[in-house]
Amino acid sequence: MKILVVNPNSTASMTAKIVEAAEAAASPGVTILGATAEGAPASIEGHFDEAMSLPGLLARVAAAEEQGIDGIVVACFDDPGIGACRELATGPVLGICEAAVKAASMLATSFSVVTTLPRSVPVIEHLIHGYGLSHQCRRVRSAAIPVLALEEEGSDARQKIRAEILRAIEEDLCEAVVLGCAGMADLTAWLSEETGIPVIDGVSVATRMIEALAGCGLKTSKINAYARPNPK
Amino acid sequence: MKILVVNPNSTASMTAKIVEAAEAAASPGVTILGATAEGAPASIEGHFDEAMSLPGLLARVAAAEEQGIDGIVVACFDDPGIGACRELATGPVLGICEAAVKAASMLATSFSVVTTLPRSVPVIEHLIHGYGLSHQCRRVRSAAIPVLALEEEGSDARQKIRAEILRAIEEDLCEAVVLGCAGMADLTAWLSEETGIPVIDGVSVATRMIEALAGCGLKTSKINAYARPNPK
Amino acid sequence: MKILVVNPNSTASMTAKIVEAAEAAASPGVTILGATAEGAPASIEGHFDEAMSLPGLLARVAAAEEQGIDGIVVACFDDPGIGACRELATGPVLGICEAAVKAASMLATSFSVVTTLPRSVPVIEHLIHGYGLSHQCRRVRSAAIPVLALEEEGSDARQKIRAEILRAIEEDLCEAVVLGCAGMADLTAWLSEETGIPVIDGVSVATRMIEALAGCGLKTSKINAYARPNPK
Amino acid sequence: MKILVVNPNSTASMTAKIVEAAEAAASPGVTILGATAEGAPASIEGHFDEAMSLPGLLARVAAAEEQGIDGIVVACFDDPGIGACRELATGPVLGICEAAVKAASMLATSFSVVTTLPRSVPVIEHLIHGYGLSHQCRRVRSAAIPVLALEEEGSDARQKIRAEILRAIEEDLCEAVVLGCAGMADLTAWLSEETGIPVIDGVSVATRMIEALAGCGLKTSKINAYARPNPK
Amino acid sequence: MKILVVNPNSTASMTAKIVEAAEAAASPGVTILGATAEGAPASIEGHFDEAMSLPGLLARVAAAEEQGIDGIVVACFDDPGIGACRELATGPVLGICEAAVKAASMLATSFSVVTTLPRSVPVIEHLIHGYGLSHQCRRVRSAAIPVLALEEEGSDARQKIRAEILRAIEEDLCEAVVLGCAGMADLTAWLSEETGIPVIDGVSVATRMIEALAGCGLKTSKINAYARPNPK
Amino acid sequence: MKILVVNPNSTASMTAKIVEAAEAAASPGVTILGATAEGAPASIEGHFDEAMSLPGLLARVAAAEEQGIDGIVVACFDDPGIGACRELATGPVLGICEAAVKAASMLATSFSVVTTLPRSVPVIEHLIHGYGLSHQCRRVRSAAIPVLALEEEGSDARQKIRAEILRAIEEDLCEAVVLGCAGMADLTAWLSEETGIPVIDGVSVATRMIEALAGCGLKTSKINAYARPNPK
Repeated sequence: MKILVVNPNSTASMTAKIVEAAEAAASPGVTILGATAEGAPASIEGHFDEAMSLPGLLARVAAAEEQGIDGIVVACFDDPGIGACRELATGPVLGICEAAVKAASMLATSFSVVTTLPRSVPVIEHLIHGYGLSHQCRRVRSAAIPVLALEEEGSDARQKIRAEILRAIEEDLCEAVVLGCAGMADLTAWLSEETGIPVIDGVSVATRMIEALAGCGLKTSKINAYARPNPK
Repeated sequence: MKILVVNPNSTASMTAKIVEAAEAAASPGVTILGATAEGAPASIEGHFDEAMSLPGLLARVAAAEEQGIDGIVVACFDDPGIGACRELATGPVLGICEAAVKAASMLATSFSVVTTLPRSVPVIEHLIHGYGLSHQCRRVRSAAIPVLALEEEGSDARQKIRAEILRAIEEDLCEAVVLGCAGMADLTAWLSEETGIPVIDGVSVATRMIEALAGCGLKTSKINAYARPNPK
Repeated sequence: MKILVVNPNSTASMTAKIVEAAEAAASPGVTILGATAEGAPASIEGHFDEAMSLPGLLARVAAAEEQGIDGIVVACFDDPGIGACRELATGPVLGICEAAVKAASMLATSFSVVTTLPRSVPVIEHLIHGYGLSHQCRRVRSAAIPVLALEEEGSDARQKIRAEILRAIEEDLCEAVVLGCAGMADLTAWLSEETGIPVIDGVSVATRMIEALAGCGLKTSKINAYARPNPK
Repeated sequence: MKILVVNPNSTASMTAKIVEAAEAAASPGVTILGATAEGAPASIEGHFDEAMSLPGLLARVAAAEEQGIDGIVVACFDDPGIGACRELATGPVLGICEAAVKAASMLATSFSVVTTLPRSVPVIEHLIHGYGLSHQCRRVRSAAIPVLALEEEGSDARQKIRAEILRAIEEDLCEAVVLGCAGMADLTAWLSEETGIPVIDGVSVATRMIEALAGCGLKTSKINAYARPNPK
Repeated sequence: MKILVVNPNSTASMTAKIVEAAEAAASPGVTILGATAEGAPASIEGHFDEAMSLPGLLARVAAAEEQGIDGIVVACFDDPGIGACRELATGPVLGICEAAVKAASMLATSFSVVTTLPRSVPVIEHLIHGYGLSHQCRRVRSAAIPVLALEEEGSDARQKIRAEILRAIEEDLCEAVVLGCAGMADLTAWLSEETGIPVIDGVSVATRMIEALAGCGLKTSKINAYARPNPK
Repeated sequence: MKILVVNPNSTASMTAKIVEAAEAAASPGVTILGATAEGAPASIEGHFDEAMSLPGLLARVAAAEEQGIDGIVVACFDDPGIGACRELATGPVLGICEAAVKAASMLATSFSVVTTLPRSVPVIEHLIHGYGLSHQCRRVRSAAIPVLALEEEGSDARQKIRAEILRAIEEDLCEAVVLGCAGMADLTAWLSEETGIPVIDGVSVATRMIEALAGCGLKTSKINAYARPNPK
């Protein structure tokens, strides 16, 4: 099985980290194809960055589809362009927010999300409303760190995220925490251990859920909304 | 007051029609600046087209902002890139779906939407869910016509839309109908007369609502989600 | 264009203030017809006051309809009698809560409301639930001031409202604030400046939205719920 | 125990029928005080009628409160003025729509409502949305009969209601039916027998539920929204 | 009228208390048949306990049905097995959570629940979501006491519940409080007096609501979901 | 990895079929442990059957936990006892309804469910409401066949299911179909081929999703609602 894991921003170091997380999660025999959206913003911090990432992201998806892949993970927590990717794709497609919050809903009666910047909070709340999980989401929180701080050695980003998770446990009485940025994937194990509750990274979960869907022979529905783009 | 009315697809004849509708609706003294998204698909029929329209759309918005405008109408019923436009904009921004369904909710206890292709139905349902108006929306219907058929002389598109509205009145018991495509703007008056209920065109309504918001001195909030894009 | 702006309470000084706000907001060429609900309570503070305001309010609406008007603003944040007014009206009708929260939803991803008395909070929450905007409303807050304190010179009502808005920004992380009483209309500009976020007054916004709807030729639907009252 | 059952319209024959239903339902030892809203419309068919019924209705409630009563039933399916009545009342207050749909939700997983005129359908849908029971309500249907036809001897209203219930069972797959008008109270037993499913009349149920609440010593909360009206 | 009040746990002292509450609430002429679920856990603290209580609970219900009863109260706030009981029952069936929160929704615009252990909070939130009353429920709170502490003389459980109700009033701005455990039934009067707001005990309310439904001749619908169990 | 797949009814032939489906779906190296709930009803057709299946189901789960397993699939579409199983479990637990509808929501914008008996329809609707996916579920349909007809050779059950799926596609305009009974697992491939849309079987999907969650090191949260049962 071949799974495309595409980073919608143009920061290659983040792609490397994401691919590493996907490979660590993947079953034996699964090939992870990493890709970086060329021409996209260096990080996705809000609606404009998200919009500007789409052509680069979709070019990667189209190219991979041509070569033949079994499923796609879009590795940004704002779930950019998922519908468009699904129109291009044959196999299943998952954004990491959708995968992570649906996983959280299977492990706990409630969860909170910890993301990077405050401006991403309403974006994520809107996604969760669309996924129908607002009633299980206690709160979307920001650790007040820019996305790329997660790439800087020596930054205090890790500590801030840990502190925010502990606040979520205490104040929100949540039973699980979802990490709200692909760039946090490498912290998952450490954060789970530090906090004692399920800490969910969307990259790993989305990769395995794509395996799950594709493994059952399931593909993206092609009869209406996700049919291939109309030729012009 | 200067209002940008931007057509996110690249079909200039549709832009002309849209600008005409906006100008017909605008108050005296309001200047409508029409714009066509360069490099965008010829029509927006689904998620992929929508995604591919965004850079052209946002370039138009950014350029207009630099020259100074008071508000923006995005003239496609899928409301593409609204959040991104709001980040770029100083004044208010409206998509025509949001404007039209909120207008409908002020004129009637229930409404149905008549759009072009079946594949747009779930896109619009998702938007209406996000706008919180699912409980007033009886049904989103498709007249089963491609977007560009609305540009062809001699097509039977008009008759199909009229027939679908009559079906909506009879089957959905709706009290108003929203036209689910910018390209239907020129049919509004005729359809209202033929059907005897409020038929709402998003282009006109969005233009006047932008006037309304800007006329009250209201601008897009800049303190969190719609703050200007972070520099990279 | 002639717009009726009717104050459902019987306090003429409040009507004067409301009319002033509507006139300041209205486009050139629009005539604002102010009206005070005779026999209504001096202020609308809860369900009973609201109910007792209706005959006076509806008499004003009926009289104005007979003389010919293009639209109606009901200038009380509890949106009293809107359905009944819509049955009497030919043109569009808006309550200031509906207008203001729908405007807020166009300018920001979230908003809070600041009203006068605690007892109005559940009334407004119920309205917002009905308008489908609970998911964008962070909180309805009370500044703990009686409605008529807004009419008293030298009262500290203004300062209390300003303080409550600042609390809303800090505690609710809202991106806009809606003023929850028609009597606050004259404070809007000052409060916007003091707080740096969109502060939305329903009187101005409703007036301009009525202009917008009527300007597009849109009228209240007459085919079912808002048909004229059945003769007895 | 003394329960006020107030008919918000001015048709005395309907009051008589309602009181009869309430008395038939009431426990031994309960006194039903019937009242007709003076000055109200002859029937409540829409928002305007509802609004115009309120002063007469509230006068009856205020008078009864002064004499001492234990609870109040407002016997119109549009639940007019319930909040205002609760402000005036010491004991519990129920509208017959609220009582009937909450009862239905206890007896079946889904129900449909059969009311008189089409124009009442959206009014009732809005109420049910507010009561949080939209997910259990299959459909609100109209039998297309004016309210007062229920008072006319020899009218075919009964047969139309029966037919509409049978359609509801077949088309909506509902498990119970709620009668959507106080004037249908005398048909309940006959309709239950004819149709074989629970047919719920709001007058009887509301009367017994008021008994239930008052019998437990429960009263309307007086600490915020339903506190007594503020003196002016 | 004969009403079965069944305690789904196996603690006989709690059954005694529950029966006492039901008898105190019941109308003259109503016989309360108490029953304890044999083989059930000593207290219902979470999903497992709830599941393990069902065979004992259903055996009691089946036995009572055979002897002839008019309605059933399931006296545990997790509303265990209500659907199953309804399949067995001829008359109406109520869990005390459903009865209590629906009663609260009739007396106040908002309520909070005070239950025993934190682990019951999500269970109750889920129930309230299913009953459609999340928008009226301010918060489900735990007083952090094991269920059986309510049976111990000299425990500080009463004081903890009282303190939690006072916190609910202050922090949640709720207008009523629902007691979230059958074992709190004997504290209702004292807590109402101490706190000055409606304090609602599900045992009493459910008993009287069963009387209300049965008194109107209403029975559990037998045409679909609650039909008698299919023979195997 | 060892996964328990437990059939909550006592029909061994159904367990065999379920285990076969799970084994066919499972990755190499995964061991499927099949189990049948002893003492449970022969089929789960409604709430009573579901309740009576729980002790047998939970005994199987407890036994498997003692021996060490990595995750659990509860193979009945009514998702019986999931919360209780989660309290007992260390690893993740999924019911096949939850797994299937969440999978459907990842592959299509809308889906319908085809189940066996009409009486299961409201049960499944209630589950989907709880999972937050009502807005994506077009309709829950019944093929009007008893559960055990799926076990009978020569029954027309297969044809009835196929016909109902075709009706769902035509009438509901759904983009995917979920099979609403564990006993349909062996029909999935045939039905997909016959109908041309994704046909989703909960047994396969749940098995692979458990693999996905467990493969990421995720376990059921133990800090509140799903903590181990309190000792008595």
